[in-house]
Amino acid sequence: MRVLAIDPGYERLGIAILEKVGGKDTLVHSECFQTPKEDAHPKRLSAILIRLEQVIAEFEPDMCAIETLFFAKNQTTAHKVAEVRGIVLALCDKAGMNVYEFSPASIKIGVTGYGKSDKAAVTKMIPLLVKIDRDIKHDDEFDAIAVGITCLNSRPN
Amino acid sequence: MRVLAIDPGYERLGIAILEKVGGKDTLVHSECFQTPKEDAHPKRLSAILIRLEQVIAEFEPDMCAIETLFFAKNQTTAHKVAEVRGIVLALCDKAGMNVYEFSPASIKIGVTGYGKSDKAAVTKMIPLLVKIDRDIKHDDEFDAIAVGITCLNSRPN
Repeated sequence: MRVLAIDPGYERLGIAILEKVGGKDTLVHSECFQTPKEDAHPKRLSAILIRLEQVIAEFEPDMCAIETLFFAKNQTTAHKVAEVRGIVLALCDKAGMNVYEFSPASIKIGVTGYGKSDKAAVTKMIPLLVKIDRDIKHDDEFDAIAVGITCLNSRPN
Repeated sequence: MRVLAIDPGYERLGIAILEKVGGKDTLVHSECFQTPKEDAHPKRLSAILIRLEQVIAEFEPDMCAIETLFFAKNQTTAHKVAEVRGIVLALCDKAGMNVYEFSPASIKIGVTGYGKSDKAAVTKMIPLLVKIDRDIKHDDEFDAIAVGITCLNSRPN
């Protein structure tokens, strides 16, 4: 079972593809997909839709993992992230994937074993769980990998 | 210039296609697209994505009109509507349409000439502005037609 794991965002979208190979969590692909600030908002969203369509076609994941809806103080930001979530959920369902949502606490437990770990502890743990063969610059990409690891180990494989 | 007008919602999505014909606002198509309550949320979103793709392919609109982001007390509802908005904006941009957003007040002005009209006044005015040849049951469909009329008369045609 191959999982498409997403950290949704309109400036930076974390994308990861993971699967179990010989019982071991394996990172097949990850990226931080960025959209230019100078582009109009609908253009940024269509760039995200097109990139997700490409990733789904290339890697043919069986399921999708994403963090649960968050409640932000800044409603405008929250709405814009929700717009990206909508695109992710619709495309994944259209491609026949089940979508699994994980709370921030369950992702921390999934990666570090402790639900109140800080971000640094999660980021530090990830390279010990999956082999990463290049530098990862953005947290969004680590966050996608984290929800993917959580999904692989929470679902029957 | 043909406009795709949308009243976004995940239970009921108002869709309207309007254009100027001989200087007169003309309703080419309208519908209230409903998704079953019993379906999982991602399935409802993908049904909306697929229906919008069909409508765009069939009617080939040149631009999209939608109400501006609203701020609701119920954040969960607002997020779910934002998810639908994301799908609409991404698909319209992908199809080469410009997206125009209108505030509730500007839509009321566009339809009734008065920014503080109530919903009943807007609904009553619509059949006087465009020919409607069947019963419309849901406000969502009227709301889509209203934002479409506003767009047709706010943009150079």
